[in-house]
Amino acid sequence: MDDFRVIEIKRSVFENNDKEAERVRGELKEQKTFLLNLMSSPGSGKTTTLKATISRLKDEMKIGVMEADIDSDVDARAISDAGVRSIQLHTGGMCHLDAGMTEQGLKEFGTEDLDLVVLENVGNLVCPAEFDTGAVKNAMILSVPEGDDKPLKYPLMFTISDVVLINKIDTKSVFDFDDDAVCERIHKLNPNAEIFFISAKTGEGIDAWCDWLRNAVKEWNK
Amino acid sequence: MDDFRVIEIKRSVFENNDKEAERVRGELKEQKTFLLNLMSSPGSGKTTTLKATISRLKDEMKIGVMEADIDSDVDARAISDAGVRSIQLHTGGMCHLDAGMTEQGLKEFGTEDLDLVVLENVGNLVCPAEFDTGAVKNAMILSVPEGDDKPLKYPLMFTISDVVLINKIDTKSVFDFDDDAVCERIHKLNPNAEIFFISAKTGEGIDAWCDWLRNAVKEWNK
Repeated sequence: MDDFRVIEIKRSVFENNDKEAERVRGELKEQKTFLLNLMSSPGSGKTTTLKATISRLKDEMKIGVMEADIDSDVDARAISDAGVRSIQLHTGGMCHLDAGMTEQGLKEFGTEDLDLVVLENVGNLVCPAEFDTGAVKNAMILSVPEGDDKPLKYPLMFTISDVVLINKIDTKSVFDFDDDAVCERIHKLNPNAEIFFISAKTGEGIDAWCDWLRNAVKEWNK
Repeated sequence: MDDFRVIEIKRSVFENNDKEAERVRGELKEQKTFLLNLMSSPGSGKTTTLKATISRLKDEMKIGVMEADIDSDVDARAISDAGVRSIQLHTGGMCHLDAGMTEQGLKEFGTEDLDLVVLENVGNLVCPAEFDTGAVKNAMILSVPEGDDKPLKYPLMFTISDVVLINKIDTKSVFDFDDDAVCERIHKLNPNAEIFFISAKTGEGIDAWCDWLRNAVKEWNK
């Protein structure tokens, strides 16, 4: 197991978050680091999906993970066990990260030598959608048990996500979940959203998602 | 189907939320109305649990439901179909309700003749935990697919909840979920928390939860 640190992130002092986010993205471009902002509800499988993703990509690129949480170091520990560098960001009760907070994390982490940094945002479909973190792409996970009506109830999250991963498809036998309806609802909000159906547990669909991520990282870092 | 209205709730102007919450509770006590604040992650089954609860209690008490959501009227429509009065509160992007916002909802709804009002809070384990709404009791739902580690990651929510409903126990065959571990984690944060294992879908465990709620309403309204 690699070591990981726990950092207490302070509320951002920047008034113009969008401008700050653009600055963060500019620095990432310069140092050839791709930042993925990964969002979802609590318990939709962000950490398990990340572990499955890391196992497929870690031999071809240098990966680091920043785990943002209100409290605990459960996730950083799990990611560290998966064999990549990780850091735990404690948000001090804040329900999201903004660009300034993300930058504090990146600075403390030291990301110059990394090709891909994943920011696992606080589990929440509301607040994280409202703040550009400076990430190159936004991805979100919707899990089958949460239901196919979530795009109707949390539209902003689906609107700002470049990729939607529909996770836990291995549990479909015990839930009513309409694949076509969910795709239609997502594309109505965000016609360009890429949608992948996956099971982080069984590995189904993970290769297609990793292909997308590999291409996005290559495109950004070249 | 009963009619329901959609109300746009404004950001509260009260600086001291705790004081405002006490005032709301005092008014509810006077008019003999019990307010339950129901919280959970998105997709953990708040609305389905409410429908199962309503079907058991609606012949013995007058019930009303306030559905708080960022957007949409999916939930108010479902509750209205269940045969009780409901109102949809739109929070205008806010991730929680505070006491002032709750009071706006109660006033618009007209709750004097109701024995039990349920406030279905915004689906979120972070922000709603930070604001006393003026409710008599707080209940939260944790669903099996979300995982037994959630008390470690969202401790405040479990600390301020009088009741924790562990929902979707009918799906246990496809998830790793440790009943003993989750109870231990909840009780470490909140030794007095009542825990009920339920399936809103099959009805398992709902009677015991309804007994608790029936007693709490009687105690408050006598």
